[in-house]
Amino acid sequence: MPLDIDADRFRETFEAYSEIGATEAGGLHRLALTDADHEARDLLVEHMEALDLDVRVDELGNTFGRREGRDPDAAPVLIGSHLDSQPYGGRYDGQLGVLTALETLRTFEDEGVETARPVELVNWTNEEGSRFEQAMLGSGVAAGAVDADHARSLADSEGRTLGEELERIGYDGDAPAGIDDVYAYLELHVEQGPTLEQSGSSIGVVDGVFGLNWMAATLEGQANHAGPTAMHDRRDALAAAVDAASEINDLPNRLSEDAVATVGRMDVTPNSINVIPSEVTFTVDVRSYDPDVISRAPEAVEFEVASAAERHGVEYEFERLWSIDPLEFSPVVREAVAAGAEAADVPYQHIVSGAGHDANHMASITESGMVFVPSVDGLTHNESEFTEWADCVAGALAYANATLELATTEA
Amino acid sequence: MPLDIDADRFRETFEAYSEIGATEAGGLHRLALTDADHEARDLLVEHMEALDLDVRVDELGNTFGRREGRDPDAAPVLIGSHLDSQPYGGRYDGQLGVLTALETLRTFEDEGVETARPVELVNWTNEEGSRFEQAMLGSGVAAGAVDADHARSLADSEGRTLGEELERIGYDGDAPAGIDDVYAYLELHVEQGPTLEQSGSSIGVVDGVFGLNWMAATLEGQANHAGPTAMHDRRDALAAAVDAASEINDLPNRLSEDAVATVGRMDVTPNSINVIPSEVTFTVDVRSYDPDVISRAPEAVEFEVASAAERHGVEYEFERLWSIDPLEFSPVVREAVAAGAEAADVPYQHIVSGAGHDANHMASITESGMVFVPSVDGLTHNESEFTEWADCVAGALAYANATLELATTEA
Repeated sequence: MPLDIDADRFRETFEAYSEIGATEAGGLHRLALTDADHEARDLLVEHMEALDLDVRVDELGNTFGRREGRDPDAAPVLIGSHLDSQPYGGRYDGQLGVLTALETLRTFEDEGVETARPVELVNWTNEEGSRFEQAMLGSGVAAGAVDADHARSLADSEGRTLGEELERIGYDGDAPAGIDDVYAYLELHVEQGPTLEQSGSSIGVVDGVFGLNWMAATLEGQANHAGPTAMHDRRDALAAAVDAASEINDLPNRLSEDAVATVGRMDVTPNSINVIPSEVTFTVDVRSYDPDVISRAPEAVEFEVASAAERHGVEYEFERLWSIDPLEFSPVVREAVAAGAEAADVPYQHIVSGAGHDANHMASITESGMVFVPSVDGLTHNESEFTEWADCVAGALAYANATLELATTEA
Repeated sequence: MPLDIDADRFRETFEAYSEIGATEAGGLHRLALTDADHEARDLLVEHMEALDLDVRVDELGNTFGRREGRDPDAAPVLIGSHLDSQPYGGRYDGQLGVLTALETLRTFEDEGVETARPVELVNWTNEEGSRFEQAMLGSGVAAGAVDADHARSLADSEGRTLGEELERIGYDGDAPAGIDDVYAYLELHVEQGPTLEQSGSSIGVVDGVFGLNWMAATLEGQANHAGPTAMHDRRDALAAAVDAASEINDLPNRLSEDAVATVGRMDVTPNSINVIPSEVTFTVDVRSYDPDVISRAPEAVEFEVASAAERHGVEYEFERLWSIDPLEFSPVVREAVAAGAEAADVPYQHIVSGAGHDANHMASITESGMVFVPSVDGLTHNESEFTEWADCVAGALAYANATLELATTEA
């Protein structure tokens, strides 16, 4: 007999949290450790305590609520996401995952579910990286990928550190942030892309996360008066840059079916209407689930930059900034999600995430996985971000049953 | 018997002026009405008074030195250029024209030349428009194209007005700046392009000035996360902009033999490595000596913007900012320059200017024309700007003889 959530309660709760830091356009402006985030955190603690969860806060402000299982020594199942938002972001990103985890534990309580393992709800600090500019920070420290002191010393644009702000809002916990005894981690999140909506699926079992490769190219030509310099005498850095960028935008077609390439940033010097540009820097972001594409991307991109530079008689520099291999989520969790969806009679499809989440960090220390629900028009980091409520409910049903599946696995 | 200048004196004078506002890299940093410009102006007045010229300063600080001819009522021939420089600009731009005019009058004096008409040397105020941001300002007011009070009220980046600065350095003259009784205007200038150097000519008889058309295009797409958005789901404003710019850079080949097109400025929003750009604005500068090209340019450019916008599913706006028709200089002055060059045995070629000069404004009120000398590598507005001294001398010889030709024309 599958678990059934309380859809009305789930929605009321979602609406209540959505009022904290609400924007006029229907989004959320609730940056990490601001007064709005403080208020949302307090509400979550209140709701966890009402469920008799054992609440603890670590040195990063990551907040846990533990529900015991039959075996108090068994490694717990960790479920949750983040309550912070992008500046003028959406209501679903992060928040929906925390509240799905809350609804899961409320359902367990309603149904008198007894699990073999403890289940812990978590709200990670500063996932967005908008205020303190390192994304997935709380989970990164928890996984040992980021140093706790470094994280606490990060300052916002007004010079206030994360540590000071944790103290100010009363979430400066004593517990070290490191985690090493978790059985599995499961996170529900909006897709932040249009795949599920386009295929008409309510939920996605996330098989893994795209790898990425970040690069930067600088083209150096010669500034000159736009009037008297004939076209063939120019060394126009922007003419070379636009040719290179145009070719780079076509690269995904040649690399793989799933690859995407983005030229997101372009800075022109001197950037004047009547001066031939002397220098242009632009960035390239290539993503794919194919590790071969990620590793071959810099060579392919540099080839386009070099070719355009040669055609326009300009010099170039090419920089490899950052690269992450594609991540495959745990088969244990993927199977639990599929089983949970089947138990709840929710149709699903497999999907690969283009964006990174706290689940990425958890994957380095435990069995980790995710459930996606659709984003209408693929919109995200935007006040217009929207997920049909029926899909939120379908996701929560699959999630609750998948959590039950994981938590009943004996140690 | 053609006039022969004193090449040693000419060079010594050029070196002396080049020390005023000299930069370490061999250029000039002598913005209009600064202390350096003040010092250069004072030296010019000293040199004009040593020639017994009648010096006067108008309300714009334009400074004239008049040498009488046989007929004091005849309209004078006006010769000169400007002593102000670009920020960290070159030693030749402007200054060479003023000093060629000075050497011309010194030669007249040496040789006891008596002309039919008066000849007046002029140093125009704020030609560069670098400090007070309107180029060719002094000549513009003189020609009636710019209002004197408006010009005097222009402020530099620190809020000091042109009028205040004229007063500060003692060049706030009483005479109104308007001119209406000039027979002809002749200006020598460096080419600011590579044409003369490439063809091996010492001087150019300037037949006219390119027209120009300034435009701006804004492409509006949709910001989204660079990861999870498939290529075919994007509305990438920068992808559209680089395609459009690439096509616009190829337009000159299709428009005319002499046309040039420059995308000089490009601003990207939000300009972030992992966000698909939502908005891009770029400018287009098209120039040609063919009035038909200037008038057809906006249609051709907008077609490329619209096509790229359609291919990438983004919206666009197109703006026509400014347009100037091509200018043909006076046949009288062009013939006088050719005759002067022939008299001095200086080979010349005909050339069209890609940039605007004070001579443009003078063309609206009198017979106006120019002599160009080569710029090595076409470099200008740059401390490395350089003209071979032999070419400066050849230019001065042709200029002195052309001035004589114009000044001996009876009224």
